[in-house]
Amino acid sequence: MEDQVNPEQASPAVRKRVQDSFDRQGLMAHLGAQITRIAPGRVHIVLPARAEVTQQHGYFHAGATSAVAESAGGYAALTLFPEDCEVLTVEYKINLLAPAAGDRIEAVGTVLKSGRTLTVCQLEVYGVRDDGERTLVASGQQTLIRVNTPTQ
Amino acid sequence: MEDQVNPEQASPAVRKRVQDSFDRQGLMAHLGAQITRIAPGRVHIVLPARAEVTQQHGYFHAGATSAVAESAGGYAALTLFPEDCEVLTVEYKINLLAPAAGDRIEAVGTVLKSGRTLTVCQLEVYGVRDDGERTLVASGQQTLIRVNTPTQ
Amino acid sequence: MEDQVNPEQASPAVRKRVQDSFDRQGLMAHLGAQITRIAPGRVHIVLPARAEVTQQHGYFHAGATSAVAESAGGYAALTLFPEDCEVLTVEYKINLLAPAAGDRIEAVGTVLKSGRTLTVCQLEVYGVRDDGERTLVASGQQTLIRVNTPTQ
Amino acid sequence: MEDQVNPEQASPAVRKRVQDSFDRQGLMAHLGAQITRIAPGRVHIVLPARAEVTQQHGYFHAGATSAVAESAGGYAALTLFPEDCEVLTVEYKINLLAPAAGDRIEAVGTVLKSGRTLTVCQLEVYGVRDDGERTLVASGQQTLIRVNTPTQ
Repeated sequence: MEDQVNPEQASPAVRKRVQDSFDRQGLMAHLGAQITRIAPGRVHIVLPARAEVTQQHGYFHAGATSAVAESAGGYAALTLFPEDCEVLTVEYKINLLAPAAGDRIEAVGTVLKSGRTLTVCQLEVYGVRDDGERTLVASGQQTLIRVNTPTQ
Repeated sequence: MEDQVNPEQASPAVRKRVQDSFDRQGLMAHLGAQITRIAPGRVHIVLPARAEVTQQHGYFHAGATSAVAESAGGYAALTLFPEDCEVLTVEYKINLLAPAAGDRIEAVGTVLKSGRTLTVCQLEVYGVRDDGERTLVASGQQTLIRVNTPTQ
Repeated sequence: MEDQVNPEQASPAVRKRVQDSFDRQGLMAHLGAQITRIAPGRVHIVLPARAEVTQQHGYFHAGATSAVAESAGGYAALTLFPEDCEVLTVEYKINLLAPAAGDRIEAVGTVLKSGRTLTVCQLEVYGVRDDGERTLVASGQQTLIRVNTPTQ
Repeated sequence: MEDQVNPEQASPAVRKRVQDSFDRQGLMAHLGAQITRIAPGRVHIVLPARAEVTQQHGYFHAGATSAVAESAGGYAALTLFPEDCEVLTVEYKINLLAPAAGDRIEAVGTVLKSGRTLTVCQLEVYGVRDDGERTLVASGQQTLIRVNTPTQ
């Protein structure tokens, strides 16, 4: 298994599957988000600061913070699924811990428990400055369900 | 009090305060969301379907659904605050109950408990078709904190 | 169907199934909780005030409040399942809205969405005084999963 | 500061304050729970298996699991507060990840973010067997508020 060879990166097939799905998400492109890491059970998504993702005080909007967190968790779950499966978010809970400031935010979704039907992920979002300063701005937990790939 | 005269609509001052804040949210404009109702303790936000707010199967992205739900709850809380106060989302939890399909989604935030420091809101999101069909697609609960208006 | 004849009460078979399961829960008996209503998609559980269920200030402990809320939701889900199914709580979130005072608390679990695999319930807990005063002390949302009855 | 001398254990004054509060909780004694560790920002509570804390299949009841988790988080928050403050749980969310089996469960509450008004804790519960096997059975997140000690 590739993830034993390199636990820091999923297999090319898994990475392609995740990236292809991400590329079909109109919202992620519209926000300007990008996947920056696809490891087995862990996915990172980065969203650069821009006026289009702010709330009324100029910080990242909680909705933008949540959107990338929720997507990172979803794709983290997907990395552990067989090829013919899809993932749906059942629910999530997120605490906004600090104003989401910085040159970008980085969401990290990590699988906490991968079951046959349900997966539970931990969600973390960091505000990151170009000088490297990194602050935890949100933390949450997400439940996801595995479904057979729908015929569209 | 205006909300006793008309429980369906907040006072002009409150509506202006909410609308002005909403208009400063880059994300809401970027998504294409609009406030459609500002009542005391209840706010509705509508987001029309467009490719820019979808997930990989063409439904509304859970991140978009959550973003309008979270904003509706925040502004519902704000309608009950004194003039010199702001609202911050502490946390929220949302269940995605059904694929968010339709010509638009409508988020309804309703104050469940308004305390001196903390407010708790119920969040509901409906998928709405132009023919009037209306389906509950998400349901959640949100905790918010009242803060003195920051000097920006 | 009985629940069309009497929407306020589940069929005798469903009530027996719920009551039997409840009676096997050591915790509910140990706390002193009782089921007081079993309707299709809605179950009430009452817990009388006693020193054994308090927190440090003499109010109902959040753990006791949650335990009856979580059980009410679980049994509400079970009322809508076929005979050979069991229910497990996947997760829940609860806001403690006010000190849980009163002569008893009453938890109400209500099915919000009943799917093939997952059920989502709304949870409410009221503090009730013997004089009839009734205060909402907690509100939450719960996700449950249907499973085949395990052979024990 | 004691917690710099010994980061694994809170100061005697803090430990006494936490233990005294815990001892006033009727529910914890009634369940048979005990505090086993009081460190700065982290508290462990252990609940031995007994029929009085079970659900219908003989596992620990989700209500018991949650009760000790919620209390562990509350006391973890309290360890970081000044002397004249109390803590109230605002809300929490918990995922039940696996059947809570074992000779005892151990709840670990850890402060994730300690603010002036609000504290956010991570909650974990392990099923522990006498032979040392240890399984994560629940994971959650809790929001708490600091209040001045009420005059009782």
